Amino acid sequence: MTTSRPVIALLTDFGLKDPYVGQMKGVLAGIAPEAVVADISHQIRPFDVMQGAFYLAASWRFFPRGSIFLGVVDPGVGTERRLLIVQRSGCFFLGPDNGLLALVAGSDVETLAWELTTPAESEVVSNTFHGRDILAPVAAYLAHGANPITLGQPLNLDDLIKPAWAAPVTTGEEVSAHVLHVDRFGNCLLNLTLDRWIVEAKTKPELLSPLLQPLALARTYAHIPEGGVGMLAGSQGYWELAVNRGSAAQVLGLVPGQELILRGVTFKNISKTRSGTTKNTNSTK
Amino acid sequence: MTTSRPVIALLTDFGLKDPYVGQMKGVLAGIAPEAVVADISHQIRPFDVMQGAFYLAASWRFFPRGSIFLGVVDPGVGTERRLLIVQRSGCFFLGPDNGLLALVAGSDVETLAWELTTPAESEVVSNTFHGRDILAPVAAYLAHGANPITLGQPLNLDDLIKPAWAAPVTTGEEVSAHVLHVDRFGNCLLNLTLDRWIVEAKTKPELLSPLLQPLALARTYAHIPEGGVGMLAGSQGYWELAVNRGSAAQVLGLVPGQELILRGVTFKNISKTRSGTTKNTNSTK
Amino acid sequence: MTTSRPVIALLTDFGLKDPYVGQMKGVLAGIAPEAVVADISHQIRPFDVMQGAFYLAASWRFFPRGSIFLGVVDPGVGTERRLLIVQRSGCFFLGPDNGLLALVAGSDVETLAWELTTPAESEVVSNTFHGRDILAPVAAYLAHGANPITLGQPLNLDDLIKPAWAAPVTTGEEVSAHVLHVDRFGNCLLNLTLDRWIVEAKTKPELLSPLLQPLALARTYAHIPEGGVGMLAGSQGYWELAVNRGSAAQVLGLVPGQELILRGVTFKNISKTRSGTTKNTNSTK
Repeated sequence: MTTSRPVIALLTDFGLKDPYVGQMKGVLAGIAPEAVVADISHQIRPFDVMQGAFYLAASWRFFPRGSIFLGVVDPGVGTERRLLIVQRSGCFFLGPDNGLLALVAGSDVETLAWELTTPAESEVVSNTFHGRDILAPVAAYLAHGANPITLGQPLNLDDLIKPAWAAPVTTGEEVSAHVLHVDRFGNCLLNLTLDRWIVEAKTKPELLSPLLQPLALARTYAHIPEGGVGMLAGSQGYWELAVNRGSAAQVLGLVPGQELILRGVTFKNISKTRSGTTKNTNSTK
Repeated sequence: MTTSRPVIALLTDFGLKDPYVGQMKGVLAGIAPEAVVADISHQIRPFDVMQGAFYLAASWRFFPRGSIFLGVVDPGVGTERRLLIVQRSGCFFLGPDNGLLALVAGSDVETLAWELTTPAESEVVSNTFHGRDILAPVAAYLAHGANPITLGQPLNLDDLIKPAWAAPVTTGEEVSAHVLHVDRFGNCLLNLTLDRWIVEAKTKPELLSPLLQPLALARTYAHIPEGGVGMLAGSQGYWELAVNRGSAAQVLGLVPGQELILRGVTFKNISKTRSGTTKNTNSTK
Repeated sequence: MTTSRPVIALLTDFGLKDPYVGQMKGVLAGIAPEAVVADISHQIRPFDVMQGAFYLAASWRFFPRGSIFLGVVDPGVGTERRLLIVQRSGCFFLGPDNGLLALVAGSDVETLAWELTTPAESEVVSNTFHGRDILAPVAAYLAHGANPITLGQPLNLDDLIKPAWAAPVTTGEEVSAHVLHVDRFGNCLLNLTLDRWIVEAKTKPELLSPLLQPLALARTYAHIPEGGVGMLAGSQGYWELAVNRGSAAQVLGLVPGQELILRGVTFKNISKTRSGTTKNTNSTK
């Protein structure tokens, strides 16, 4: 009974008051009417590339293999910044090269990337709306099975822009991580994915900076000892800092983008990662 | 030209800023890409089960027979509360057993219910996101034609949680009703459905509590006598209290969830309802 | 690989908190489940017909030929105002005759219009929700290929309501235009479409009223001379007034709906427009 329909998922900072998202959907419906078009969110804070990158990274695994993700958080539209196609695990990710795709592109050596070079067949390519005039047609072509090699030039993954928050850095026993997201309850989601980072009670995880704080490994928010700070495997696929019936962001004084130093957190070395190091970023920090 | 596509309608209190609704749509697109997925609303006030129940009850009749409604307003997620499948008039309703389905499940003896027991085939079942990890897959299976008997254990409808606002109670000539919703104009929608409750000018409807107020049966808001309070058959399928160019909620001092006592309102006894009584609730009030 | 699926695009002032948009989608899914349903916006300011008209006019060209646009910004619902079907370039536009369709219906002599007369087969036609009870079924019938002649009575385009902002008026060298929209950056979009109005550096465009201001023709916002006011071909298909890193609305004291007098702006006379005049409106101003 299942039919095969390509899925195109959208993520922007356009909001829903303006007609911009609708215009992108018009372009998609014209070229790929058979596609399932789904919104991840259009309420990324304007120009907040890190929030957009986190939403993409937290969401893409819930979509079927072959899905196409179109991300537009693009303060540099109209400038010389590159537009990217990233391929990972059978999915495609489209967006500007400003870090928006850095979390999905960063941690898997089988990931491929292209710089978009073929101009899309859009009647008007505006200087300010590449999401509608370039990326939406490309997403629709990919939904039709276009090969990315016909749409762009291969890029080395190391040449993509990688903000400091794109990957943790391990130095001896210490891990420098970043707060990717503070949710509405004040829980702080770190850039430590559940599939790559191990936290165990026996290693006694603790926060070293910006303040000293032991962390209680907890299965649910309700299991965090009162007055303490817990570390949990969250529903978004990332390790979270949380307090029971309170805001970890407030208790610890944390904001999105902030750097933390942790101890007792271990990178799970998988065979395919780069040899001999757990530093999977080009950050020099 | 019409094709047969199952419809899955979503109602949550997740809002549209977070990626949660998008992740549910990813799961649905993976299992049931042929389904039409439509949003009723994702802006239910957080944890406001009554508002969610009202939106479902007011909306489901506009969807085609066989539609599947997935409701997530679930303050008890992660606790022992049950997850339900309710079947009525060929439609399925999924949600926690906290009253969210009480308005659709309450008034028809041909309604059936099951407690969801079969764990869904989701890679990760989080403790905090059952909407995505359990209910969305189940909705997709039902869209594929799954029999609910394979997904859960039959439940007696009387065992479902029924808040006081789930059904009016008739005592002699008086009816205890509740305000289900105050719309943006201040109109107060009562838990008196147009198909079951009769209001006629000759019965002189009046409000007895929280204050004495005669009610003018009116066809439109504009027909309500100035300075008076009208009772109208509203576009949402419920009887409404309204004032002409003003807010009934403000004039009468009413808020959502409030109990009212009315006179001159009659239950339409249909053959299939339970015998001998118009009390169609287990409320002990 | 492309299948043929009709597209129905929605524009309302209902917001997304209430279940009204969802109920319209339920009606559409019941009659035309094969349609692609896309939202342009549901956050038109309540009753702001001009904003709705502008969003429709700016968006429809991005949708495929044959698309059906359902617009509901309808302060007169329940009164005697007409409901319209407008056909242009193979697309259909549905909405009340209050100016909402005036920008799409105004500028093309091949446009046709009908007054909707056939009552839709809806169970309940409410007095307050014609979008759901009348227009949504009609949109679905058009998606199935219904001929508008079976749904309404032909209307003369000149008989449609045309607000002053629906078309500029040329008098000698001066053009009376209106601000259709002020975007979130303060850019002022005028009712001068890029396909019909020519602005060239050599004609030295300038604003005469409400204040005297030379306008610098600029390719992008960044090209506007500092301290000056630019005129740009915007991404929405309209000429815009803008200032570099600032708000044109604030600098010029402009608000949506305001009339401007311009010089150096020329109507592109296309063969099919009415002969001998560039006044393409029945405004008497």
